[in-house]
Amino acid sequence: MLPKDPFNIRLSGRGGQGILLAGIILAEAGMKDGLNVVQTQSYGPQARLGASKSEVVLSGSEIAFPEVDIPDVLLCLTIDSYVKYGGTLSKDGIRIVEKMVTIEEEVEDAMILPVIETARALGDEIAANMVALGSVIALSGAVSKEHVMRTMEERIKPDYLELNKRAFQKGIQLVSQSDMSYQANPDGAKSGF
Amino acid sequence: MLPKDPFNIRLSGRGGQGILLAGIILAEAGMKDGLNVVQTQSYGPQARLGASKSEVVLSGSEIAFPEVDIPDVLLCLTIDSYVKYGGTLSKDGIRIVEKMVTIEEEVEDAMILPVIETARALGDEIAANMVALGSVIALSGAVSKEHVMRTMEERIKPDYLELNKRAFQKGIQLVSQSDMSYQANPDGAKSGF
Repeated sequence: MLPKDPFNIRLSGRGGQGILLAGIILAEAGMKDGLNVVQTQSYGPQARLGASKSEVVLSGSEIAFPEVDIPDVLLCLTIDSYVKYGGTLSKDGIRIVEKMVTIEEEVEDAMILPVIETARALGDEIAANMVALGSVIALSGAVSKEHVMRTMEERIKPDYLELNKRAFQKGIQLVSQSDMSYQANPDGAKSGF
Repeated sequence: MLPKDPFNIRLSGRGGQGILLAGIILAEAGMKDGLNVVQTQSYGPQARLGASKSEVVLSGSEIAFPEVDIPDVLLCLTIDSYVKYGGTLSKDGIRIVEKMVTIEEEVEDAMILPVIETARALGDEIAANMVALGSVIALSGAVSKEHVMRTMEERIKPDYLELNKRAFQKGIQLVSQSDMSYQANPDGAKSGF
């Protein structure tokens, strides 16, 4: 059951962090849930270094506007992506920000999670995208965990599957262990900036 | 150099044919060419069986409308996708239709190519997406072949890389060997239907 229909998710970070794969897995899990889904990936010549984003729109009906304008869930894995995309969020939207961003930037009105540290502790920072996906899904309930796991089996190379599944589970746990005093954006779009 | 800016490409077929991967490789090759690129994938609950599409918009400037409305290049790998998407094409647009579609459906104003047969002759129908990608790029010149090859090395599993590279080259050859009496759509959108 979607918390809202259509439900807009924006995942942002930098090129090489696997944001696209996280978006595709989210999209295909939504399709398995019986939803209509549009997944959009934007690339600029600077995407490898600068901020990049992957967007997913989920709906029980046909999707008229496939581009995420104001996200209901926003993930920022880097400072650059936080600066570029961090300010736009729907009323009661959920903002998830990687903990390392807070070292250099003041972050308010967000769920701060040690996504990258968690992936490193599992043995490889490359799995940060699946930690993040676990947290996004635990917080939003947008798609079923079972269908995410099944899509991971289809999309991830066998050698990396175990690591990625553990990363996904850790991402879910991060949310349940974190400080639940965080309140989803009560003031509507653009709050906190 | 793009034939037109923005340049819209729609790849269509059925779920499981690797249309998404072809779109991603096209998009990332465009980014390596220094272009702005938006890649969009739509999924419906029926996408595994019905018609599915992957769209790529390429531009030298920022892309204002990320969704392909009228494609400049249209690929249809199945009858269902031809029926659903085959009728919309820009003036002077290029329509590429899989030869097997012509067994059951009358196809006019299109470049008819034996994409699936070519992939089978290479040993695996799964490579049809890369044959198609080779033909799309040979016909449109939208992105550089070198950057497609480099992106394939990044995106395709090592075990399948050789097969996919050969498929891509065969797709390029298909175009140069085919009947060049085909004229790109001279009458503008919706012609031929």
